[in-house]
Amino acid sequence: MYFASDNSGPVHPQVMAKLAEANQGYQMAYGADTMMNEVRDRIRSIFEAPGAAVYLVATGTAANSLALATLSNPWETIFCSPVAHIHEDECNAPEFFTGAKLTLVPGGDKMAPDALRGSILGEETRGVHGPQRGPVSITQVTERGSVYSLEELQALCGVAKEYGLPVHLDGARFSNALVALNCSPADMTWKAGVDAVSFGGTKNGLMGVEAVVFFDESKAWEFELRRKRGAHLFSKHRYLSAQMAAYLEDDLWLKLARQANANCARLADGLRAKGAEFLHEPQANMIFAAFSRAKHKQLHEAGAIYHLWGAELEGGDDDESLACRLVCDWSIGTAEIDQFLSLL
Amino acid sequence: MYFASDNSGPVHPQVMAKLAEANQGYQMAYGADTMMNEVRDRIRSIFEAPGAAVYLVATGTAANSLALATLSNPWETIFCSPVAHIHEDECNAPEFFTGAKLTLVPGGDKMAPDALRGSILGEETRGVHGPQRGPVSITQVTERGSVYSLEELQALCGVAKEYGLPVHLDGARFSNALVALNCSPADMTWKAGVDAVSFGGTKNGLMGVEAVVFFDESKAWEFELRRKRGAHLFSKHRYLSAQMAAYLEDDLWLKLARQANANCARLADGLRAKGAEFLHEPQANMIFAAFSRAKHKQLHEAGAIYHLWGAELEGGDDDESLACRLVCDWSIGTAEIDQFLSLL
Amino acid sequence: MYFASDNSGPVHPQVMAKLAEANQGYQMAYGADTMMNEVRDRIRSIFEAPGAAVYLVATGTAANSLALATLSNPWETIFCSPVAHIHEDECNAPEFFTGAKLTLVPGGDKMAPDALRGSILGEETRGVHGPQRGPVSITQVTERGSVYSLEELQALCGVAKEYGLPVHLDGARFSNALVALNCSPADMTWKAGVDAVSFGGTKNGLMGVEAVVFFDESKAWEFELRRKRGAHLFSKHRYLSAQMAAYLEDDLWLKLARQANANCARLADGLRAKGAEFLHEPQANMIFAAFSRAKHKQLHEAGAIYHLWGAELEGGDDDESLACRLVCDWSIGTAEIDQFLSLL
Amino acid sequence: MYFASDNSGPVHPQVMAKLAEANQGYQMAYGADTMMNEVRDRIRSIFEAPGAAVYLVATGTAANSLALATLSNPWETIFCSPVAHIHEDECNAPEFFTGAKLTLVPGGDKMAPDALRGSILGEETRGVHGPQRGPVSITQVTERGSVYSLEELQALCGVAKEYGLPVHLDGARFSNALVALNCSPADMTWKAGVDAVSFGGTKNGLMGVEAVVFFDESKAWEFELRRKRGAHLFSKHRYLSAQMAAYLEDDLWLKLARQANANCARLADGLRAKGAEFLHEPQANMIFAAFSRAKHKQLHEAGAIYHLWGAELEGGDDDESLACRLVCDWSIGTAEIDQFLSLL
Repeated sequence: MYFASDNSGPVHPQVMAKLAEANQGYQMAYGADTMMNEVRDRIRSIFEAPGAAVYLVATGTAANSLALATLSNPWETIFCSPVAHIHEDECNAPEFFTGAKLTLVPGGDKMAPDALRGSILGEETRGVHGPQRGPVSITQVTERGSVYSLEELQALCGVAKEYGLPVHLDGARFSNALVALNCSPADMTWKAGVDAVSFGGTKNGLMGVEAVVFFDESKAWEFELRRKRGAHLFSKHRYLSAQMAAYLEDDLWLKLARQANANCARLADGLRAKGAEFLHEPQANMIFAAFSRAKHKQLHEAGAIYHLWGAELEGGDDDESLACRLVCDWSIGTAEIDQFLSLL
Repeated sequence: MYFASDNSGPVHPQVMAKLAEANQGYQMAYGADTMMNEVRDRIRSIFEAPGAAVYLVATGTAANSLALATLSNPWETIFCSPVAHIHEDECNAPEFFTGAKLTLVPGGDKMAPDALRGSILGEETRGVHGPQRGPVSITQVTERGSVYSLEELQALCGVAKEYGLPVHLDGARFSNALVALNCSPADMTWKAGVDAVSFGGTKNGLMGVEAVVFFDESKAWEFELRRKRGAHLFSKHRYLSAQMAAYLEDDLWLKLARQANANCARLADGLRAKGAEFLHEPQANMIFAAFSRAKHKQLHEAGAIYHLWGAELEGGDDDESLACRLVCDWSIGTAEIDQFLSLL
Repeated sequence: MYFASDNSGPVHPQVMAKLAEANQGYQMAYGADTMMNEVRDRIRSIFEAPGAAVYLVATGTAANSLALATLSNPWETIFCSPVAHIHEDECNAPEFFTGAKLTLVPGGDKMAPDALRGSILGEETRGVHGPQRGPVSITQVTERGSVYSLEELQALCGVAKEYGLPVHLDGARFSNALVALNCSPADMTWKAGVDAVSFGGTKNGLMGVEAVVFFDESKAWEFELRRKRGAHLFSKHRYLSAQMAAYLEDDLWLKLARQANANCARLADGLRAKGAEFLHEPQANMIFAAFSRAKHKQLHEAGAIYHLWGAELEGGDDDESLACRLVCDWSIGTAEIDQFLSLL
Repeated sequence: MYFASDNSGPVHPQVMAKLAEANQGYQMAYGADTMMNEVRDRIRSIFEAPGAAVYLVATGTAANSLALATLSNPWETIFCSPVAHIHEDECNAPEFFTGAKLTLVPGGDKMAPDALRGSILGEETRGVHGPQRGPVSITQVTERGSVYSLEELQALCGVAKEYGLPVHLDGARFSNALVALNCSPADMTWKAGVDAVSFGGTKNGLMGVEAVVFFDESKAWEFELRRKRGAHLFSKHRYLSAQMAAYLEDDLWLKLARQANANCARLADGLRAKGAEFLHEPQANMIFAAFSRAKHKQLHEAGAIYHLWGAELEGGDDDESLACRLVCDWSIGTAEIDQFLSLL
């Protein structure tokens, strides 16, 4: 009963198999491996973007930080949600790589177009004194398990475009959002107005690979230099390529995302039936729910692993309602979910 | 006949097996996996350094840059060889992570103690005007395939210590040097005066893992923060741990390094017999040799893959002697070496 | 009728005289001038801090950025007001010099101790993932013309100290606050818990000099190196020293601040009498007041110069109330103030 | 007898007078003062560059660092002399502002075109691995008192242009070089191939002002943002403008440079007559000469102030020849020079 994070489960067997397949003979290093050519073509095809620049890195923070650095200048500010991963969970990596500031758009985890416009209007009205307006970074799935609809994405990108600002999509859970929306990758990115996307794999069955895709290929060389300077270019790059190749083959990425979201829906339905309250409506593979400390204790004793959310297990009244975060990846079995629910 | 680099060959099967073994069930992310505890203990034991701080990253550039950033301040200069990897091959990553300058100690690829002292004396004699003296970074095996003797290492560290400067060892080929010297890891590091080491695995059979070891554990927390801020902390860290665990198990690391060095010696002996000239005496797993363009062409046509060194295959006289770099990893077969030699 | 800013007026004649006095013969460069010794002693004496480290720079942004860089680490966050100069008006200079992030403490221009505690508690609860807690930066006079009482300063510093965080005081208008509180410089700084202060002069009659004072002298050498590396060490430093010497001589700094505050009070009283509304209670030398567009137009036509605050002169209804900022320095004459008031 | 540096003498009286003149009434801050418009026009006219972007900063290190940051990218290397001020005397400020590395072109203080070409060819031949080729920075007058001829400047710029690299001229002693060459500012800059110049004033009679001139005005806005972000934008900018205005008025800058060079020539002639040896042929306002310790001691006792060059006054044989640096600014009197010579 492991619901702590979607980075805690195993790598999918097909990915392991592809790594073994890639582990034959000699390959040019640093991204010049033959499998990378296939991966690049496949991602361009999936995104319906034949001219896209496609790169692989090993961590989501690297994907976000390097993409944003390529889209921004050090005297700019990057607009994002107050709970964005780039703000809360990357220990100043975005500031380190970009030199820029982050401006937190007021509101919840989802940015609203008007709030974004308000934040944009709040900057760069005083010449050189404040930071200049820079990229907008949108997280899809959000850090609270919500999914922007295509209309919402288009509206946010539309505001950015009004002011000539590039848009970055933090897609650490891109696949989970995509299957939730049942749309195409192009719909969720460049057709909506996104300029660059961190296309995540690590949280969806890979060992550690994220693609960075720029729909404007003029950013390609700068990104390559930034990746190397950031120490994120792998010599034995073929093992990144192999993971991504397995991910894309036969739509494994979509299959795993569907499994994760289905697991999450099963768990959410069960929680709802047991009377749990939801802090956010679960739309992908994460649940933020609240139920009594007594039940948390029971689950804890039975070996369930997950994070309480702004709360402590020990101390306090057993009746008190405590929030928690429950994350499902593809590998959670229905038996485990049902066991968890039965303990409630 | 692949002698282009020791990052071009496959991952050792035992490493793949350990990855499969690690790929079971759930594990805490970000370095809190159980295998990392074993790895840490094992490295401390191998280095006879029970209090050492031990971390894993995925690239050699990350290991070097983060280690140096932890040992230095942005107003300092780092002393290194003019051909050091940190100077020539990391696209300003050390400058990015440290903020410091690199001072190139005059001479060849091996730094000489007197030259190092001269460079140190050349800095920080004018108050705040020049950069202050910072760490000394030594590359072992050097970028030209030479190995510092223990006496040489001690002498260099001794000079650094005279001026209170910390010492970093870039050990991307640490294992190859160790078996060449036939000494202990402690001899080649802290007993000689080294404060932190990039203990490489990627060039010796791993997929992409380097350990950073600080003999002074007070650097631990700063390193952890720098690693995260540099986007080099892996969520699914267990797969880094697994590689390193396999590497250390039953001294695989030493076995592979011995194989690589033996391959290199066989190749060097053959080259010598064929009358090739050596730019540097090969002491580990790299050869810098020169022979006629005609022979290079012949090898090239037969499918041999390696880098010419400051020379072009096409154009010029067939008799002209052209330098090349030949690198052996553990996986090169003797058959291939002999085939290569037979073509000369 | 110039109320646009306290950086628009002339330099005080005694400062010009001291510059002329300093302009004799030869002086050692880079802060080794004899007058700097007097300045250092005098500031230590004024602050009752015999061991303080004292440095001069030429801009307020340099003073703040360099002081904060010396007090923080690049993986930390600096706590400040949402309207702090370091956040709104320095084009990412604090981020550039520190590498850190700024955390905006919710609330108005004055930070409240509970809000500060809340922000501190919101950080660094997740290991390396978020930025670590760094310095608290307090602006005195605030950017909205308010003055923290000694009790308020003590309370804020007290919260910082609970968490072991250093405190920086942005005292661009230090003197105006001091005479408003009628306390000692020690009271308003180290006795309240401040570790380093940007002690402003430029807005109070100087040409361009701010002192940075560290009450913990162990920061001295680092600051000197950071100042040089930031290109903020003046070769002909004697002209910075001279300005500060004149400023401190015979308490010119206090006299000018009293004049500025008195000018402001006269203006505020007049505005109040004319029925203007105040966005903030003016406590030092700045007024944020609102009155009708018609009156603004009248003043504008009569040649009054000041900034509207989030409003445009043109367009809209003449009866509409528009906010403005009115700043008084020492040099504003009462005649001008009365002329301004008579136009209302 | 003060020959320690050209930043030790007084400010010229006409500059002080212009500061007093500027010290009237109110002026817009941050470079919007009326005098700056005149200065900009005058510099454009002097350089025969009507579209040039012209900015003022207060230190030479700021001028160099900000100009280079505007001309380069953080993954590049800047080519300069091993004794360039940006390398030896700015405590990593260029690295801080640019993020780039410095590549030291082998040779003496003057770069030779072939050596520059060799250094350029040595970089960027390995894709992303090494830093990319960035700007060439030329120091005129060099740090050893030499002056590049126009032919030499053209040749260096020509090499840079072959590789598409921008050229920066560190003209801390621009005026001294100009009067030595007896050419026009345009000849010594854009006509030779220079893209941006640090046009120094501080060492030639000003209090602390350097202009940065970009002949390509498309760099203007980026420079403004970098200046602000570097904390180098002055609020009371009029006092920078006033210094530069006085400097340019009636060719004061040329007059002072001629005086300094004439002083230097008188001193050099005298030294030659006394049998001193010259390390470099003095061509502007600096002398590097050697004579016996005994004579140095005598001068020292008589109150002469200057720097020994890589030597110590105390200890050693009185007959030993010790090198020294002697710098003349405009303010040195012939009486002092003759007194100095008479002591030899």
